[in-house]
Amino acid sequence: MTSSFNPPTRTLMGPGPSDVHPRVLAAMSRPIIGHLDPAFIDMMDELKDLLQYAFKTENALTLPVSAPGSAGMEACFVNLLEPGDKVIVCQNGVFGGRMKENVERCGAQAVMVQDAWGKPVDPDKVEVALADNPDAKALAFVHAETSTGACSDVEALCALARQHGCLSIVDAVTSLGGCELRVDDWGIDAVYSGSQKCLSCVPGISPVSFSERALDLIGNRHSKVQSWFLDMNLVMGYWGSGGTRAYHHTAPINPLYALHESLVMLKEEGIENAWQRHRLNHRALAAGLEAMGLSFLVEQDYRLPQLNAVTVPQGIDEAAVRKILLNDYNLEIGAGLGEFAGKLWRIGLMGYASRKENVLKCLGALDATLQQLGADIDGGTAVAAANSLYNSR
Amino acid sequence: MTSSFNPPTRTLMGPGPSDVHPRVLAAMSRPIIGHLDPAFIDMMDELKDLLQYAFKTENALTLPVSAPGSAGMEACFVNLLEPGDKVIVCQNGVFGGRMKENVERCGAQAVMVQDAWGKPVDPDKVEVALADNPDAKALAFVHAETSTGACSDVEALCALARQHGCLSIVDAVTSLGGCELRVDDWGIDAVYSGSQKCLSCVPGISPVSFSERALDLIGNRHSKVQSWFLDMNLVMGYWGSGGTRAYHHTAPINPLYALHESLVMLKEEGIENAWQRHRLNHRALAAGLEAMGLSFLVEQDYRLPQLNAVTVPQGIDEAAVRKILLNDYNLEIGAGLGEFAGKLWRIGLMGYASRKENVLKCLGALDATLQQLGADIDGGTAVAAANSLYNSR
Repeated sequence: MTSSFNPPTRTLMGPGPSDVHPRVLAAMSRPIIGHLDPAFIDMMDELKDLLQYAFKTENALTLPVSAPGSAGMEACFVNLLEPGDKVIVCQNGVFGGRMKENVERCGAQAVMVQDAWGKPVDPDKVEVALADNPDAKALAFVHAETSTGACSDVEALCALARQHGCLSIVDAVTSLGGCELRVDDWGIDAVYSGSQKCLSCVPGISPVSFSERALDLIGNRHSKVQSWFLDMNLVMGYWGSGGTRAYHHTAPINPLYALHESLVMLKEEGIENAWQRHRLNHRALAAGLEAMGLSFLVEQDYRLPQLNAVTVPQGIDEAAVRKILLNDYNLEIGAGLGEFAGKLWRIGLMGYASRKENVLKCLGALDATLQQLGADIDGGTAVAAANSLYNSR
Repeated sequence: MTSSFNPPTRTLMGPGPSDVHPRVLAAMSRPIIGHLDPAFIDMMDELKDLLQYAFKTENALTLPVSAPGSAGMEACFVNLLEPGDKVIVCQNGVFGGRMKENVERCGAQAVMVQDAWGKPVDPDKVEVALADNPDAKALAFVHAETSTGACSDVEALCALARQHGCLSIVDAVTSLGGCELRVDDWGIDAVYSGSQKCLSCVPGISPVSFSERALDLIGNRHSKVQSWFLDMNLVMGYWGSGGTRAYHHTAPINPLYALHESLVMLKEEGIENAWQRHRLNHRALAAGLEAMGLSFLVEQDYRLPQLNAVTVPQGIDEAAVRKILLNDYNLEIGAGLGEFAGKLWRIGLMGYASRKENVLKCLGALDATLQQLGADIDGGTAVAAANSLYNSR
């Protein structure tokens, strides 16, 4: 007979999900109530306010999609695109490729702007693509590329989109809560994120936000949104403000308790303080890695603090290292994707996982494991270097 | 400053979500691990086996979609349909209408077979529609209509579909775990359910299962599935058996712990015993309601044990009753939908909520509230009638 599942207790420092704070787990296991219960509707209103806080937006259409970040991405494309539309899609990692898939499955055309994996999106190339495609409806790109750890300049890219009369669609799955993101100030038209990265909630929910301009477009489509489940015209009937909430689908009640709690904690800390914390822990991790002699994929100016892509030393089997870390230290770090499979580790410092004890644990474990495997590194230096960075503040 | 959300403790006897067992809430709040962690992958394999048990199927493609039942419905249609296809859709309540929306948003044509709300789907009408539409690709219908409490004859309808060379697509959102459902014996090709009804898990997950015939069709489509997120060709790369699991999207780790636990509990009880328990508690509830003089929408032979649609007595404001039940008894029952708004209550006895103490609580509270509001009922009789039914076993 299959028995209850008792997971091991891990430290999650991969590309997400990240460590979940005990307060969030406790919130999630509170008693379930109905999805039309007045108490739940009050919670929904708070949740929308908290998401506006996190996104730094006043957008009325700001809500959590009841599915993972991939569905949030799809929600943005299927609501904004109609067959025959043209979208400029920037690709500098895995997730730009996923955007292309989404655009094409809407019956729209994707004009690709390619940058090397590990580089940020190049605004000059984007400007050329916008000039060459005056009929483009939208510009889509990833803020924080989870596959490489590169951060692109959202403000500059959105300004270009606006100058050329395009909507901007931004993937903020890994950026929200972990680094500067200002939806209104930067003029983003549609943005989606995930609950399981720098918000440190459980996976399965995708916060989204749409500008007034995007909202008008969604309300005045020529064709129906191809997804009934993700049709914002219907979803808004449940999440919309005031009056009666119309049943659309059953909201994931308890995971929304969890998201609410994680956002309450973000607000208690202050989002700017959270950004600062992510930067500090990144600098300490970087000090330790560099002391060992390891290097980063991404140039310093474009490095995400929450996702650190680190090159594997010559002659080392990266999977063997991750296996030792998992089995001996209960520590998860991520592998490289695509062209970087076998060549990179991805060390996440996201949300609740971005804290001093995790940085020190990870550096100590990685240092010891690499020494154990005979890697050509400057062993025994990493933790001290990180501590020194913390103490120099 | 927004503070933590502390929900009231309710008894959930509406159309879902249903009460969640403390074991399921405890499982959900266990520590998060990665979605590619070997321990998680073992849990996924168990979860697929448990879902096969619950669906009574050997179908290899049996897995939990990472989103609510509405997305499970959409997963069935977008994977099986291509533009220009024709589907016979049976409607005898709200959810047949939702199927029609899904079919049309796939660029396919829905041929509707209408039955009155509260009636089961009429196999004779279906046979005529199948004969009139030899080019139809699929027959789609709802097993357990949550909006009315009517149960349709899945076995007979699937046999008709097969005789006419059609696939069968079955909505089992409210039936799975609550009444007889045999995916293999009845020859169902695609079936979807929800976690929050008779499985008594938290909402947000949709178990689905596809037959070999459906699987072949999905693997040999002319066009790509219009939803990237729900494309089973991709989802199978993560949930498929053996070898490496390819990342598709981040699974909702903790809600899947919860689903695992709810299915472990179902298997401990034995699914036939769970069906029997639902029938017994329904009979006790019915005895109490009928003693008061209340009547059911659905004829006895087609009544679902887990969803009881009860007519509101003349002159009684049904919303006022639900408000008293919620505020004074922390008891949620459901309202009527569509043409039955204001005329019906929907009393759920689903999963963990289907137990004697809930039946007695609900009858006592409803009896007292109707008396309080001066309804023309036979007051004070309901609980005794139910007790008598329980004692007569």
